Amino acid sequence: MKLASLKSGRDGRLVVVSGDLHFCTDAGLIAPTLQAALDDWTRCAPALANLSDALERGAVPMERFHEREAHSPLPRAYQWADGSAYVNHVQLVRQARGAEMPESFWTDPLMYQGGSDDFLPPRTPIYLADEAWGCDLEAEVAVITTDVPQGITPEAARNHIALVCLVNDVSLRNLIPHELAKGFGFFQAKPASAFSPVAVTPDSLGPLWQEGKLHVTLNVDLDGLPLGRAHTGVDMTFDFGQLIAHAAKTRNLSAGTIVGSGTVSNRDAGGGPGKPIAEGGLGYSCLAEVRVVETILHGAAQTPFLRCGQSVRIWAEDGRGRSIFGAIDQKVVGKPVTI
Amino acid sequence: MKLASLKSGRDGRLVVVSGDLHFCTDAGLIAPTLQAALDDWTRCAPALANLSDALERGAVPMERFHEREAHSPLPRAYQWADGSAYVNHVQLVRQARGAEMPESFWTDPLMYQGGSDDFLPPRTPIYLADEAWGCDLEAEVAVITTDVPQGITPEAARNHIALVCLVNDVSLRNLIPHELAKGFGFFQAKPASAFSPVAVTPDSLGPLWQEGKLHVTLNVDLDGLPLGRAHTGVDMTFDFGQLIAHAAKTRNLSAGTIVGSGTVSNRDAGGGPGKPIAEGGLGYSCLAEVRVVETILHGAAQTPFLRCGQSVRIWAEDGRGRSIFGAIDQKVVGKPVTI
Repeated sequence: MKLASLKSGRDGRLVVVSGDLHFCTDAGLIAPTLQAALDDWTRCAPALANLSDALERGAVPMERFHEREAHSPLPRAYQWADGSAYVNHVQLVRQARGAEMPESFWTDPLMYQGGSDDFLPPRTPIYLADEAWGCDLEAEVAVITTDVPQGITPEAARNHIALVCLVNDVSLRNLIPHELAKGFGFFQAKPASAFSPVAVTPDSLGPLWQEGKLHVTLNVDLDGLPLGRAHTGVDMTFDFGQLIAHAAKTRNLSAGTIVGSGTVSNRDAGGGPGKPIAEGGLGYSCLAEVRVVETILHGAAQTPFLRCGQSVRIWAEDGRGRSIFGAIDQKVVGKPVTI
Repeated sequence: MKLASLKSGRDGRLVVVSGDLHFCTDAGLIAPTLQAALDDWTRCAPALANLSDALERGAVPMERFHEREAHSPLPRAYQWADGSAYVNHVQLVRQARGAEMPESFWTDPLMYQGGSDDFLPPRTPIYLADEAWGCDLEAEVAVITTDVPQGITPEAARNHIALVCLVNDVSLRNLIPHELAKGFGFFQAKPASAFSPVAVTPDSLGPLWQEGKLHVTLNVDLDGLPLGRAHTGVDMTFDFGQLIAHAAKTRNLSAGTIVGSGTVSNRDAGGGPGKPIAEGGLGYSCLAEVRVVETILHGAAQTPFLRCGQSVRIWAEDGRGRSIFGAIDQKVVGKPVTI
């Protein structure tokens, strides 16, 4: 089953989307919004699955699905908790600034509480008021949960994953050092994120979803050229069950909580930092990693952070080359954007 | 105007409360929930104000208002951004662990992104699974905003304050050092917070609201004994306009964003750390500060963090001794609680 929120009001209008992303059908009779469906998932999920079957059979009224008309699946959410499950990414970033990575990072997930009140639609430009902030993309996988009780085990937590999607966790790299030095984590350095047009249930992913991990190539293009082709199922130190359990150690998580994987990052086959795609590697899912590898290899970063006019595209395909989640496709602009 | 959300479903049922907190009247014809009212504040605020006038005149059906039936004004919110406006608190906590406080903390607000998906009602016990986590209260002031555009000035931000309330920002002190050392801010160290039963508009506070600050004595009792009587209008380095502007530097804030003041903390009249109430001081709004002052004065902390069975009460009164926001009154318990 695939779900999307067409732009409408603050929370969008829930539709069921066909497997090929060509068509959708209104799900308003089951739940007006995705949040409302998640609030009552036990009742709504089977009803939405039935509607999805009917859509695939052509048995219900349908309309053409246009990704540009979709908001993020949850245009605003009650929680966005972003992990750093690809520890390779963390290690590289630290290496570049000469900071040792504690051994515990391999066993105890890093996670930050992100802003969730105002996500960007997947095709809406990123408004960058100041290029000096060092705007970066971060291509990630995310899951949307049902209600999760405090103290849940990682194994049981996997059963609370309602939906899977992609995310561009926009970061302002040059604001990070000052903000982290203050000790309270990210705030201004993490502006609004954008999620893929479509969120899908784990069961509909078949073999692409195994043991709490998505197994696809995460395609990231910068200005139409391949930047990243990392494998989401490789080098993911913590599966989503572990990330959810970490988040729920000291409190319940409400339905509609979004948990992110952190920037997807693969080591090179030889064990070192990954190579650029042009050199036969799998590339990178953020510019910070490009710059880190440049720093390690050449002594200084050469690739600048995002500038106004540049564009980022993030998507994943199934075994038959069909887009699974639709594409996040965002241009960076210097003026405020009306959605 | 005073508003509350009676416990009902995930988001409560919006009621208008009388100034003396004795009565309330259903506001469902205007907006079913406080979030719905905030989503459409321009339309709803005047209608709710009219209903409030009618309630005071006895011109509408009313019911007895019981604080124990109230949830937090927003039982779940899209954003909870907690500042540290009482820099005295930050300085004391740092002093105790031998860390210098950067001079910039007096001009650049500290703020962390808190979990907002699952607040506790103001009279619901705090479930503490492990006393070794070092559970502490933090008595604070908070404001609930309307939509705030990115890049707003501190002065303009004051006009986006819809409501004012109190909060107990529960903290797990013994989890903080490990979590802050990881560099991504608080997560597990900040379980669910609880807000006062009633939220009030700034205009209804009269002279108790001036220049973006609340001017009351913040009463904090521990096990029925006075712990804190700090003045919220004193030693607040950043007003709420400045805190909101800080939060909105790189992104919009959605209606229903809650911004906290951080633990209220006054210096002693002599300029040093505040004295306990028993010694003629204004006391403390959290146990960490009690322990810090004990450490500074006696070389070691004597007061333990909260244990199961202890209770915390937080409230404020107007010039006539009437409770303004109702009371947060929470017991600490060792077993999960059903709301």
